Amino acid sequence: MFNPRTDLAVEAREIYNKNREVEIEGVSVDTKRMLGGIRIVTVNVLNEKGEKAIKKPKGTYITMEIPEVKHYDVDLHEDLTRALSEEILKIVDVKKDLKTLVIGLGNWHVTPDALGPKVISKLMITRHLKEYMPDELEEGINPVAALAPGVLGITGIETAEIVKGLVEKTKPDVVIVIDALAARKVERVARTIQIGDTGIAPGAGVGNKRMELSKETLGVPVIAIGVPTVVDAATLANDTIDSMIDSLIEETKNNSETKGFYNMLKSLDKEEKYNMIKGVLSPYSSNMLVTPKDIDALIEDLAKIIANSINISLHPSIDLNDIDRYLF
Amino acid sequence: MFNPRTDLAVEAREIYNKNREVEIEGVSVDTKRMLGGIRIVTVNVLNEKGEKAIKKPKGTYITMEIPEVKHYDVDLHEDLTRALSEEILKIVDVKKDLKTLVIGLGNWHVTPDALGPKVISKLMITRHLKEYMPDELEEGINPVAALAPGVLGITGIETAEIVKGLVEKTKPDVVIVIDALAARKVERVARTIQIGDTGIAPGAGVGNKRMELSKETLGVPVIAIGVPTVVDAATLANDTIDSMIDSLIEETKNNSETKGFYNMLKSLDKEEKYNMIKGVLSPYSSNMLVTPKDIDALIEDLAKIIANSINISLHPSIDLNDIDRYLF
Amino acid sequence: MFNPRTDLAVEAREIYNKNREVEIEGVSVDTKRMLGGIRIVTVNVLNEKGEKAIKKPKGTYITMEIPEVKHYDVDLHEDLTRALSEEILKIVDVKKDLKTLVIGLGNWHVTPDALGPKVISKLMITRHLKEYMPDELEEGINPVAALAPGVLGITGIETAEIVKGLVEKTKPDVVIVIDALAARKVERVARTIQIGDTGIAPGAGVGNKRMELSKETLGVPVIAIGVPTVVDAATLANDTIDSMIDSLIEETKNNSETKGFYNMLKSLDKEEKYNMIKGVLSPYSSNMLVTPKDIDALIEDLAKIIANSINISLHPSIDLNDIDRYLF
Amino acid sequence: MFNPRTDLAVEAREIYNKNREVEIEGVSVDTKRMLGGIRIVTVNVLNEKGEKAIKKPKGTYITMEIPEVKHYDVDLHEDLTRALSEEILKIVDVKKDLKTLVIGLGNWHVTPDALGPKVISKLMITRHLKEYMPDELEEGINPVAALAPGVLGITGIETAEIVKGLVEKTKPDVVIVIDALAARKVERVARTIQIGDTGIAPGAGVGNKRMELSKETLGVPVIAIGVPTVVDAATLANDTIDSMIDSLIEETKNNSETKGFYNMLKSLDKEEKYNMIKGVLSPYSSNMLVTPKDIDALIEDLAKIIANSINISLHPSIDLNDIDRYLF
Repeated sequence: MFNPRTDLAVEAREIYNKNREVEIEGVSVDTKRMLGGIRIVTVNVLNEKGEKAIKKPKGTYITMEIPEVKHYDVDLHEDLTRALSEEILKIVDVKKDLKTLVIGLGNWHVTPDALGPKVISKLMITRHLKEYMPDELEEGINPVAALAPGVLGITGIETAEIVKGLVEKTKPDVVIVIDALAARKVERVARTIQIGDTGIAPGAGVGNKRMELSKETLGVPVIAIGVPTVVDAATLANDTIDSMIDSLIEETKNNSETKGFYNMLKSLDKEEKYNMIKGVLSPYSSNMLVTPKDIDALIEDLAKIIANSINISLHPSIDLNDIDRYLF
Repeated sequence: MFNPRTDLAVEAREIYNKNREVEIEGVSVDTKRMLGGIRIVTVNVLNEKGEKAIKKPKGTYITMEIPEVKHYDVDLHEDLTRALSEEILKIVDVKKDLKTLVIGLGNWHVTPDALGPKVISKLMITRHLKEYMPDELEEGINPVAALAPGVLGITGIETAEIVKGLVEKTKPDVVIVIDALAARKVERVARTIQIGDTGIAPGAGVGNKRMELSKETLGVPVIAIGVPTVVDAATLANDTIDSMIDSLIEETKNNSETKGFYNMLKSLDKEEKYNMIKGVLSPYSSNMLVTPKDIDALIEDLAKIIANSINISLHPSIDLNDIDRYLF
Repeated sequence: MFNPRTDLAVEAREIYNKNREVEIEGVSVDTKRMLGGIRIVTVNVLNEKGEKAIKKPKGTYITMEIPEVKHYDVDLHEDLTRALSEEILKIVDVKKDLKTLVIGLGNWHVTPDALGPKVISKLMITRHLKEYMPDELEEGINPVAALAPGVLGITGIETAEIVKGLVEKTKPDVVIVIDALAARKVERVARTIQIGDTGIAPGAGVGNKRMELSKETLGVPVIAIGVPTVVDAATLANDTIDSMIDSLIEETKNNSETKGFYNMLKSLDKEEKYNMIKGVLSPYSSNMLVTPKDIDALIEDLAKIIANSINISLHPSIDLNDIDRYLF
Repeated sequence: MFNPRTDLAVEAREIYNKNREVEIEGVSVDTKRMLGGIRIVTVNVLNEKGEKAIKKPKGTYITMEIPEVKHYDVDLHEDLTRALSEEILKIVDVKKDLKTLVIGLGNWHVTPDALGPKVISKLMITRHLKEYMPDELEEGINPVAALAPGVLGITGIETAEIVKGLVEKTKPDVVIVIDALAARKVERVARTIQIGDTGIAPGAGVGNKRMELSKETLGVPVIAIGVPTVVDAATLANDTIDSMIDSLIEETKNNSETKGFYNMLKSLDKEEKYNMIKGVLSPYSSNMLVTPKDIDALIEDLAKIIANSINISLHPSIDLNDIDRYLF
């Protein structure tokens, strides 16, 4: 079955479910609501049936649906930071002296793609301190290292190669990868945080086992945290037209005069339509992104929220109120 | 008649012309092709009839339709720089010691809106040199000053207030204003350069005489140079659906079965449709922009091209080959 | 009498006092200590005698001597913000609806000179809100506007011309000017905040009445807030040699063998020495700056402290704890 | 013998030579002059005697002494680029398909330390193109990869660990390391380019074999290219006082009255003096840097020159005139 591109498990599931009334076999879904209007959907892909159904490897996909992140709403920032930290702690077992390596994927110089590097810049980096001045660090600070390796076009090196080398040298217990994602729905952009334990396949690497960042390729658990920051233009147009056709179908349903068209519409297959649209837009659409007007501020805020939730998760002795004492 | 927002005169004209076969009274249009696949459309709004028809004040609107600006294609960069300079020199009479003030509108910190400030940063600023070390400057260097005042949200001051004060103090002979524009068609983004001699109404100022930057408000000729860098998401969806309905109309035209729908489609009014779409997208679309993936590099290149075309236009003794001796 | 360059009144006074034991006539000095190891010296130049003596116009010069600003020491940040606010409120009478214009001098692109623009970027800008949506603003928010006009080399326009035009258009009740200063002593860099009510003469404008920003030239009170961020290299060498010669004098004083040299040293005049050094260093020293290694972080912190102290001073209804609700 | 810190071999040699008239055993020195006022000194440390003498490992140290790099002087930029390329080609044997990894040391966010990362951003990165679209690349383009790993404080990982992992994964034939250096003399800052074939020990790593980047630790030749961008403040003061004392010695030499002091001065030992000065300056000096006023522009220009000299050296088919076609 045809799927416009999405990096979000919860979307994959929806796409699949659209034409079905039943839940998917091999996939369990749990939903809960939290403070500050946060809704958390946990999708567990249990087996191959589930993998086939929603085209995501076996594992846990936590999707936090969050309110609009306003720049000045520090209360929401704090609720989000704590909620995200809770979910991280469900996947990562933070035992004493846990060694973590955080990788920030994406391109510093392209705003909607800079989430990963920005998170890195806001992390508490402690690995070298543990090594060179262990006595000066209080209890409950764990060794954290980080790298924003840049993208293939800038380094000429697959991110996976860089990370593999780094993992072999620094031997972390767990790797956390941060990335900006593409969403299928405009309303998901900057409104969803996804946490997964099945790793990630950066950019070019999609569908390329060799390039995956996962337990299989790195030998240690790989946690991926992502936020959709863009929608591709063709997808946007496609979704608009879907909704429009649905309303047309309504209008024409019981109208004998338009019966024929009604049938025609019903018979229109998603892929046909999507390609027709791509045709209409192309060649320009392929180079266009749909992104929020205030993407610069959004990336800044989301990076702070993700970085601090990692900070308070990995360092048991650090509370959110202490963060400013260690960071800007 | 209804018009989705556009800053481009050539688009305004098209919108208007769509349902007409004849040229517009009060508007003259001249088209020519140039080196490097550049097409230049000059729209002259001659009188009130013309003003009413395309909703732009009387004056000259030059639209350069340009090929895709590739980062490394310096030949194209040069062709564009020279071609733009030619058009500038048609509107600006560069006599000896012409005093020019260049204003870069827009927000440094929002990539697609940073065109104006970036152009300023690449200009040859000479006004102070003419004043403090006139003898060290060769013949044919004219006094040029520039300011990127920032946007209302950052300064709390209408750009027009800042510029008016500056014009009164520095008494330039001409003001050139650079701004990033919104286009109606994806294919116009970063593919059109508009030059006009009727000034501009920055952001909030639209339709607000007081806030206009024009000969009327500043007392000196105001040349506006703009490049569309974004399309709003609803507009994108709208245009896609237009084209789709056109093809549906084709399909259903001679098909008795869908005759009824054919008529329904024909009767669909643009505004209805646009609002329907806005409904479908909202509330998210209103905050979304459609912009090229490589907008960062595009802004950089376009700023260089515009700045250098201004440099060689305003300083008779400077040729493009000399620029590097004075600038980066 | 000879003075190496200094922008700090308290230094000007010291230089003068060095060879005198008595306090200066026409100059009153008051010193107090505050929380967080802050020491505040208030120099009042009372009359022409005082002006002659320390080469600063009549007025009040408050010098806050502050501890090292550590990036993570938010308590100190808060103490400094509140203390600076107290001093500002002594010079600025913040009555209801006071209209303030804040000017950030300096060059965005040169780190030690970017203090002014950075402060602007962290201010609560409210003038436009008061104008366009007065009802949405709570009591006790006053209209604040701001501009970072850039430096002469970038605009070709004297800052004073830009500011004068702006003041005429926007008619503020008071102007606050922020600037990065040059100190004479390394230990003053980033360790002193100076507040004065006699305005300022930006860069090139020094000793150029026309270019001054002051009540005399703008027609409204002008408050200047500055922090030394650099020392010039020759000054550094000069001071080192002073201290060294002092110790040599000690060594040689009672030693008949070196009596002759002792006398020679005593007779060495400051200016001679300074020029000898300039000779030794030149031509390189003239282009060199002495600045802290972590100047980037220092500028960031100091800008936040100054901006927030202005924010809580100008808006009676805003407390430091609210700031984050309005700003990033 | 005591040496103030220097990263420059040519300085190490001078320090050593100061008190000797003869050339150093185990060290050969060759000097030549080139176009554009460039002087190239090649120091070869031939054996252990040489190593002991100038405290640098056996190998070749090429020092290009260059004129002041003016922003607009593109002719000088080109002369420097070509001259540097010639020297690189003497140390690197660029055979067909030579695989190069370029490492940019230093901190993006500290201007004088950003040389390495800036060079990386201006390199022609081709390794991935050779891999994914070999046919689209013309003859004589070799695979080049690059990384700016950031500094220990930002990553928590020693640069050497990152680079070692990367070398094992990507198996380059040669590694080129770019770094900003500390000079002992103000007049060397931004006026010297050093190329060496003995690798480098980044920041903390100094004197720490484990952290060295060298053939010994990486298993492939390591070329280091560095430019001094700072002098430490104590060194500056020290050198000033040296010159001053020399002139005092002159003055006192034949003056019976000051004979005693003359002898005292002669007997003053460098280290004593340096410590006396450090005392005078401390604790501030230790945190101060002496750097050119226009360091931002200098770093930009030097990065362009170094990057392009690497580009034309590693890609036989690329001439300086082509660069713009491939890069910005």
